[in-house]
Amino acid sequence: MVGGGQLSRMTAAPATALGVGFRVLALDPQESAAQVTADVVLGRHDDLDALRRLADGCAVVTFDHEHVPVDHLRALVDGGVAVRPGPDALVHAQDKITMREALDRAGLPCPAWRHLATPDDVESAGAALGWPFVLKVSRGGYDGRGVWIVTDADEARHVMERTPLVPGARWLAEERVPFTRELAAQVARSPHGQAVAYPVVRTVQVDGMCSEVVAPCPDLPEEMALEAQRIALEIARVLDVTGMLAVELFDTPAGIVVNELAMRPHNSGHWTIDGAVTSQFENHLRAVLDLPLGDPRSLARWAVMVNIVGPADIEGLLPLYDAYRHVLARDPGVKVHLYGKEIRAGRKLGHVTVIGDDLDDLLARAHHAADYFMGVIDE
Amino acid sequence: MVGGGQLSRMTAAPATALGVGFRVLALDPQESAAQVTADVVLGRHDDLDALRRLADGCAVVTFDHEHVPVDHLRALVDGGVAVRPGPDALVHAQDKITMREALDRAGLPCPAWRHLATPDDVESAGAALGWPFVLKVSRGGYDGRGVWIVTDADEARHVMERTPLVPGARWLAEERVPFTRELAAQVARSPHGQAVAYPVVRTVQVDGMCSEVVAPCPDLPEEMALEAQRIALEIARVLDVTGMLAVELFDTPAGIVVNELAMRPHNSGHWTIDGAVTSQFENHLRAVLDLPLGDPRSLARWAVMVNIVGPADIEGLLPLYDAYRHVLARDPGVKVHLYGKEIRAGRKLGHVTVIGDDLDDLLARAHHAADYFMGVIDE
Repeated sequence: MVGGGQLSRMTAAPATALGVGFRVLALDPQESAAQVTADVVLGRHDDLDALRRLADGCAVVTFDHEHVPVDHLRALVDGGVAVRPGPDALVHAQDKITMREALDRAGLPCPAWRHLATPDDVESAGAALGWPFVLKVSRGGYDGRGVWIVTDADEARHVMERTPLVPGARWLAEERVPFTRELAAQVARSPHGQAVAYPVVRTVQVDGMCSEVVAPCPDLPEEMALEAQRIALEIARVLDVTGMLAVELFDTPAGIVVNELAMRPHNSGHWTIDGAVTSQFENHLRAVLDLPLGDPRSLARWAVMVNIVGPADIEGLLPLYDAYRHVLARDPGVKVHLYGKEIRAGRKLGHVTVIGDDLDDLLARAHHAADYFMGVIDE
Repeated sequence: MVGGGQLSRMTAAPATALGVGFRVLALDPQESAAQVTADVVLGRHDDLDALRRLADGCAVVTFDHEHVPVDHLRALVDGGVAVRPGPDALVHAQDKITMREALDRAGLPCPAWRHLATPDDVESAGAALGWPFVLKVSRGGYDGRGVWIVTDADEARHVMERTPLVPGARWLAEERVPFTRELAAQVARSPHGQAVAYPVVRTVQVDGMCSEVVAPCPDLPEEMALEAQRIALEIARVLDVTGMLAVELFDTPAGIVVNELAMRPHNSGHWTIDGAVTSQFENHLRAVLDLPLGDPRSLARWAVMVNIVGPADIEGLLPLYDAYRHVLARDPGVKVHLYGKEIRAGRKLGHVTVIGDDLDDLLARAHHAADYFMGVIDE
């Protein structure tokens, strides 16, 4: 797996259970996944030699992020390496314009959008999409970075002129859809075409970063849940995705539209470790290895996942471990996952999951635990 | 954790989730746990220097077996190392005579038994306990080794005379109790005295090795389940156990009696990985670290675990991985755990777990999957 972050880290456990050798390409031995993996190759994801060292002796290469240059992926494929998802699929998770074009061709519902070739295109985009609109870089953004709500042409031009782009990135403008909530639909798909769909979840973003997930989405009419799953399965099929696909969706009065894609395990599926028969991490492995996929069903009526994110003011914050005595004593049912990262403001440091029958109780418990780790609660 | 077997291997996942550093003392880099652990110390469990290298920088030392010489444990404790369970507890899992003496003192129900100081003691033991009786070595046995059913004095003497003993081992004779089934009660207990009890399970042994576990034990009257849990909690308290304690029990017409103890995660609790809110491996870590313990309750009405054991005739057996395409396609709900071991006859190679509402269905599914791995089923 390319990348030594928490997604690789959480893939180690199902690799161990399945008895599958697991090697990680990490930047340094202290990266989240490298701390807990026996077989670590040190190197960068944009270094073809490092990617070749990773691939040597592996049955398949997969990813915990989408930032590997596509030319490197094609070079690996040309060298006989099984790369899953393959470069022709992964480009759609790398570049939002490529993604929008493909979904438009497939007739899948997206917000209206425009490519902004130059800052002068913002006026016509605003006229077509309305103000404010959503200004995005097509590549290199994540967790809310690379996304701006701009209220007029001057603001849009100002952002475009002061923001450096990563190589190959372009600007796009998207209609600001009047969504009432955000959903995510996750599917796993294997090379021979088997696919399974997880329950559709409700996600809450704070500052563009996933903060809370409820599985399944409360009060979601069954036909909308099926429509969200159908969209995700259709995207997986038309883009020939292998592994996990997460489709972030806006729930709007006019129906569901696709916001973003990720072709890997995703924050919206962390609840599956403790709340589903087969976790997204296990199904990602099974999918990229072309093994039959596991049951994606929930183990309980509800699962709630809340992220532990480094607070703005980390001064005086206790080490996360020190919170255990309180968090675990208060709630024997809370499942804690820490990523082994140094505390920094705005950084995803871990998450908690609770499952059960009473959604209000689960929400209160999960937020209490996460808040305590973040030093927000003094009790 | 001392020992590189499957119990250490399965402890790695909750250590990762909790963000707890995890180091294993293994005999070689290919041992089950060493394959999947970033921090491995190579050495023997009976080498004090190796134990000191393991302990250096660790908050606590614990075990995946009970074979560390107690003098070494005392030397570690004298050197300031937190050893959990401590030597004064662990001796009861190392030596069956020490265990029986302690349980007799505590008034806990055991089969009648006699120390056999010499082969000449077998006649008086037989007169007291009846023939056949169970002949055991007090130390060094596991998975049915070191246990014989002997029908008369000649046979008992013959076993004693031809069997070499490990240092410190003695012989004992135990009444052959007329049990109708075997049960296991697991508890976790922490240094400050918190304890939690898992559901009492039914175990099936084949050739002295755990083969199948059903959680909870079917048709077990609640008062008997509570009595089994009370016995396990009382043993944990009187012996000052820290970590997981497994109490193997015989269900007899006259009530429950204690068969064996283990002070570590145990085969009878493997179902908890997929079938309980908190696995035995996580609660072992939480207990030895003196963290509050996790909820031991089941996630479903029933859980069934079946071991994958190397069959007598391994010639022509496919690699275990090759069974996946069948096993996983036939049953998307089966959870497979392979231990990364070379196939040998009679060796525990992995296990499968299924959870759900229909016990007969679960038993059939778990045995089908395990049998397929063992090459017993041709379809």
